[in-house]
Amino acid sequence: MSLPRLLRAPCAARALTKPTFKRDSTVRLLPTYKSFSTSRRRQDSWILDDGTSSKLPGIDPSKLEVTKTITPKELVPNKDLVFGRTFTDHMLSIEWTASDGWQAPRITPYQNLSLDPATCVFHYAFECFEGMKAYKCPHDGSLRLFRPDKNMARLNKSAARIALPTFDGDKLTELIGKLAKLDERFIPSEKGYSLYIRPTLIGTQRTLGVGPPGSALLFVIASPVGPYYPTGFKAISLEATDYAVRAWPGGVGDKKLGANYAPGIVPQLQAAKKGLHQNLWLFGPEQNITEVGTMNLFVCIKNKETGQKELLTAPLDGTILEGVTRDSVLALARERLVPEGWKVEERYVKMQELADAESEGRLVEVFGAGTAAIVAPVRKIVWKDRTVDCGLKETEEAGEVALKMKDWMEAIQYGDEASPWSVKIA
Amino acid sequence: MSLPRLLRAPCAARALTKPTFKRDSTVRLLPTYKSFSTSRRRQDSWILDDGTSSKLPGIDPSKLEVTKTITPKELVPNKDLVFGRTFTDHMLSIEWTASDGWQAPRITPYQNLSLDPATCVFHYAFECFEGMKAYKCPHDGSLRLFRPDKNMARLNKSAARIALPTFDGDKLTELIGKLAKLDERFIPSEKGYSLYIRPTLIGTQRTLGVGPPGSALLFVIASPVGPYYPTGFKAISLEATDYAVRAWPGGVGDKKLGANYAPGIVPQLQAAKKGLHQNLWLFGPEQNITEVGTMNLFVCIKNKETGQKELLTAPLDGTILEGVTRDSVLALARERLVPEGWKVEERYVKMQELADAESEGRLVEVFGAGTAAIVAPVRKIVWKDRTVDCGLKETEEAGEVALKMKDWMEAIQYGDEASPWSVKIA
Repeated sequence: MSLPRLLRAPCAARALTKPTFKRDSTVRLLPTYKSFSTSRRRQDSWILDDGTSSKLPGIDPSKLEVTKTITPKELVPNKDLVFGRTFTDHMLSIEWTASDGWQAPRITPYQNLSLDPATCVFHYAFECFEGMKAYKCPHDGSLRLFRPDKNMARLNKSAARIALPTFDGDKLTELIGKLAKLDERFIPSEKGYSLYIRPTLIGTQRTLGVGPPGSALLFVIASPVGPYYPTGFKAISLEATDYAVRAWPGGVGDKKLGANYAPGIVPQLQAAKKGLHQNLWLFGPEQNITEVGTMNLFVCIKNKETGQKELLTAPLDGTILEGVTRDSVLALARERLVPEGWKVEERYVKMQELADAESEGRLVEVFGAGTAAIVAPVRKIVWKDRTVDCGLKETEEAGEVALKMKDWMEAIQYGDEASPWSVKIA
Repeated sequence: MSLPRLLRAPCAARALTKPTFKRDSTVRLLPTYKSFSTSRRRQDSWILDDGTSSKLPGIDPSKLEVTKTITPKELVPNKDLVFGRTFTDHMLSIEWTASDGWQAPRITPYQNLSLDPATCVFHYAFECFEGMKAYKCPHDGSLRLFRPDKNMARLNKSAARIALPTFDGDKLTELIGKLAKLDERFIPSEKGYSLYIRPTLIGTQRTLGVGPPGSALLFVIASPVGPYYPTGFKAISLEATDYAVRAWPGGVGDKKLGANYAPGIVPQLQAAKKGLHQNLWLFGPEQNITEVGTMNLFVCIKNKETGQKELLTAPLDGTILEGVTRDSVLALARERLVPEGWKVEERYVKMQELADAESEGRLVEVFGAGTAAIVAPVRKIVWKDRTVDCGLKETEEAGEVALKMKDWMEAIQYGDEASPWSVKIA
């Protein structure tokens, strides 16, 4: 490959001899640019943030320009909705440049992106995203987002980790609300249906030097989705995977970066060879259970000594995706299961510990947690030449805790139950 | 996130109950598709490779369609050429679909890509690439590629690792030759100049389900580049980085995936805060030296016991990028330095070992190796609160081995010296 642009840049010597930084900057180092007129030239003169970047314009919803479609799409019948396959009429786009900050937001008809083939998103994976949902309340018809502040905070953390620009999460949430409202007709009022919203941030610098992008595009698309399990839960089966590693200390496994996804596909196909749906990612010589496929994992076991029921999930140590559903499950469990005598803990469960719990009749339930499915019950885990039965009866597709969690979450998401987690779109 | 498409697909049950595979497949599991008519639908019906995929059309240079530009670009003066900033008149594109294989290759005017915002390359980093160069021989004016077979082999390995389609490397090399020939006027005949060629393969599936792309685009762009160091070598200084980790066993650090690049930028900026050019990636409790920035690293030390000079680089254990320049340096060293008494070895050097060698006056030279710069001499490495001097005199910008390697490589690249590594473009 090549050396970084610092070495090739006309201003590199200055950048290296006199770098200045925001005092409070721990991760985010906003590149700033001299007054070159094109994005192509800007990259070569970046110096590290000298504080001027903070004066650059942020996302400003008052500048929103809306161009409505003149060819509205036909709605897909509810029963034919497939996750992430069809999209609404419109999309939200906000461009950013290192010299001018965030530009006026635009809602336009859903349309292709036109990008130079040298654009850095195609070469160096400058990309991060979120998955969130808007729900239609069956009582008052209002539209509601579920914990959008969590998604915005995570997108900012993801962006900062790969030198993409950060933004005011409340402002983006406001704009996402406007998009959802404009495309409201795509959200069926039936329970179980919602609008899956995909904010995506990509680097758009049109040069091959490996360095922080001088321009970026934040876009939001939305896909109407049906219940994840139209005919009720379907428990999944997992391969305990130790030959491939999803995330590691000092890496980026806790961020929602594109980089974390493509490498997981071949292991997923390998699991499918064995008739298994997903990978249960093990880590380290202890074979710690980390996550399942693209979801967090929860384990319910009875304590060996005390018999107390424990709800366990991996701690946020930098290798675990900071799932919004994970956080919600933990909060609900602490509020509603602990008073019933449960212990709730964020700690690693070793694969051997899980297998032992099964052998000893102490494994109560296992489920994945993520935005798309809310919870995904697990029937069995194939670990080397052993199969760990996760406690479901043959006729069962979900355990008690998974069912409760789904009900509790949906009650909040659809507005049946008042909660600060459910944010009405104005 | 979401569950994989297997769970959502109409044919998922069948795929899971009766998966079939190519017998000799170790990594590559080509998805095959039922007869849906659009890429959007295809994804939901993939079954694992049943062997039919091998009958799908491969890349076929005889089907090349060429559309020449009617607005040829002005050439950038040699002195103003910057790596990867300006591109030639044309580009090569070859589309692939899981149902129809590789389509007819096209050379067209250099132009933007138009992609649906749901395209998987933007969300899940389905992207891999190569960096290679074409040189103009000062003797006979012929165009030459340097070890293109190595780039093709690596691109295929990268593609297979993220479930993108593989291809016949010789066929792609032939097409790349045609592109270079068509845009020959962009390659100055001066020594030191060349055409940097960037083959890139991206997933183009237009759905948000996380699974193997049902369509892809292979494109090749080319950028005329000048000598990496127009005024001679400039030695770089490194931060020995242990807080961020580039690659991990069981990960994808040995592949040229976009996913390996974006996460390295913030650490690079952190190094720049200290006035250092690049990260020297350390790994593990032993603080093994792995790579530098986006290059492989070579260390020359004198053996503590025997005094023998040793040229050392990290072994290809799955975490080290399989650099073409790395391989070439090793081969040249084995051919030309070993007879002079050198020992050449692929093994890890611990950071402490390097520091000890410096303290004891046994550290001869350190340099990075990559396509863009060939070799990048290292002046110093800052490790915690210590600075390791890598043996250059204050007035020197490169050591003896780095200089030799550059000369040897360039003699082959430009055709001064006959070598099977230098492949004439017909």
